[in-house]
Amino acid sequence: MTIILYQDKFLPREQGQVDMEDRGYQFGDGIYEAIRVYGGKMFLLDLHMKRLERSARELRLKLPYSLEHLTDNLNQLIRQNQINEGLVYFQITRGAAHRQHLFPDHIESVLTGSAVSLPREETLRPNGIKVSLVDDIRWLRCDIKTLNLLGNVLARQEAHEKGSEEAILHRGATVTEGSSCNVFIVQNGQLVTHPADHFILNGITRLHVIDLAGKLNIPVEERTFSTDELYHADEVFITSTGAEVKPVVQIDERVIASGKPGSITQKLMNAFDEEVARIKAAALY
Amino acid sequence: MTIILYQDKFLPREQGQVDMEDRGYQFGDGIYEAIRVYGGKMFLLDLHMKRLERSARELRLKLPYSLEHLTDNLNQLIRQNQINEGLVYFQITRGAAHRQHLFPDHIESVLTGSAVSLPREETLRPNGIKVSLVDDIRWLRCDIKTLNLLGNVLARQEAHEKGSEEAILHRGATVTEGSSCNVFIVQNGQLVTHPADHFILNGITRLHVIDLAGKLNIPVEERTFSTDELYHADEVFITSTGAEVKPVVQIDERVIASGKPGSITQKLMNAFDEEVARIKAAALY
Repeated sequence: MTIILYQDKFLPREQGQVDMEDRGYQFGDGIYEAIRVYGGKMFLLDLHMKRLERSARELRLKLPYSLEHLTDNLNQLIRQNQINEGLVYFQITRGAAHRQHLFPDHIESVLTGSAVSLPREETLRPNGIKVSLVDDIRWLRCDIKTLNLLGNVLARQEAHEKGSEEAILHRGATVTEGSSCNVFIVQNGQLVTHPADHFILNGITRLHVIDLAGKLNIPVEERTFSTDELYHADEVFITSTGAEVKPVVQIDERVIASGKPGSITQKLMNAFDEEVARIKAAALY
Repeated sequence: MTIILYQDKFLPREQGQVDMEDRGYQFGDGIYEAIRVYGGKMFLLDLHMKRLERSARELRLKLPYSLEHLTDNLNQLIRQNQINEGLVYFQITRGAAHRQHLFPDHIESVLTGSAVSLPREETLRPNGIKVSLVDDIRWLRCDIKTLNLLGNVLARQEAHEKGSEEAILHRGATVTEGSSCNVFIVQNGQLVTHPADHFILNGITRLHVIDLAGKLNIPVEERTFSTDELYHADEVFITSTGAEVKPVVQIDERVIASGKPGSITQKLMNAFDEEVARIKAAALY
């Protein structure tokens, strides 16, 4: 039986119900995180929790539990659902109140969470993926991980209908990020990715790949780059919690470089694989 | 007892619950309408329903019922809650499915609705209101009446904390609309308001006021105008379903013209009042 987290309680899936006047439902007034699970353990947990705190602060939304308590509950959720390789998703809304735009007084935040199995996609990676360029029409605070995701949804749908696995978004000539990932290009042995400002969500995998690159002596430049630089990059890859590091070999009808995943992308994937292997080995003891 | 509408059913308020994986709750993937009720009748119903159909079409979201059936249910909701002067609110989401950005297959839209009393604010109007200018940071499809309202919420909250009743939004030098209203200025006897493009929600009261102005031989120009034109307007007013026509006499620390509601605003308010009085008189028979 699937178990979900509702506030502080573990409930059967079908009891995961929220009020119709929850502000998450009427305004998208809430935040969320999705955390990778390897060997039954949450990966890069501290970075996710730090980002959660920041999102809450930016929206002045009260976290209903301490991070320690929340972590304990998420770990229990993973165990109860027997998740080994998977994804924990949870969201926190400002809570339920009679509909008005203003933040209501005396409102209690609402937490809902789930844990699902999600195998790693190693088998997909050897060939890389096709993506589509889509206009970035989202709001100007993409740095906050909110539930206002319709711009992301529409972009992903558009890319899907063009036969692509993901949308890469651009504002004018500037590439920002994907519908649910960050975008890196490789130029002359160097990684380039959009800076973590208000135009992108600062992905935890993005941060981790920048860290891994440092350890591998691969230089990283955080600066905006253009759609033209994207098309002419030596390599392109995307990063996300679910997809980890995934090579991009085609953008709409344009093939990137040789049309195969590049060597620097491969190095990063290998480093990532080794890390996950270590975590899984450690989890066996 | 308060009765709400859930899909096709009339339920006690406390049974108004939705699934935690409703896409309205996780993505804001839904649309809504709020319709004024005078004398127990929905005002400008056809215009609201036409806009609902357009919002659904733009998001490729399936309306769960015919407009006729929906109208019957909303009328019953008004009667069951004995609303004479009030507001009907309803929203339709894409429905519940395991979380993914892509539109899921075989998904059933979810409708929730409520009807509440809301007296007209005639007593507030003689003095007009103060508003604040706030940056418009919303997405670029404000013409669709979606549940992605966090930009509107944050703007209203900011205005409130500055002691204002509403936020007037601007992109650079251009005034777009309010957090939940449209904005008109009067210049030399003429109304000016932002055109109904992707930057604003085409308010039903906006449309109705343009219509009323025609009948009163007040010329209307739909064009963008600047914050500077706003500050130096002869008159400023806002329009919304809840607030109808409301004079604005102060923008942050700047007083507009004489600091009192202007004569053209007054003419429109009078025409509006007469219309509502006719509707209420007719409802008595």
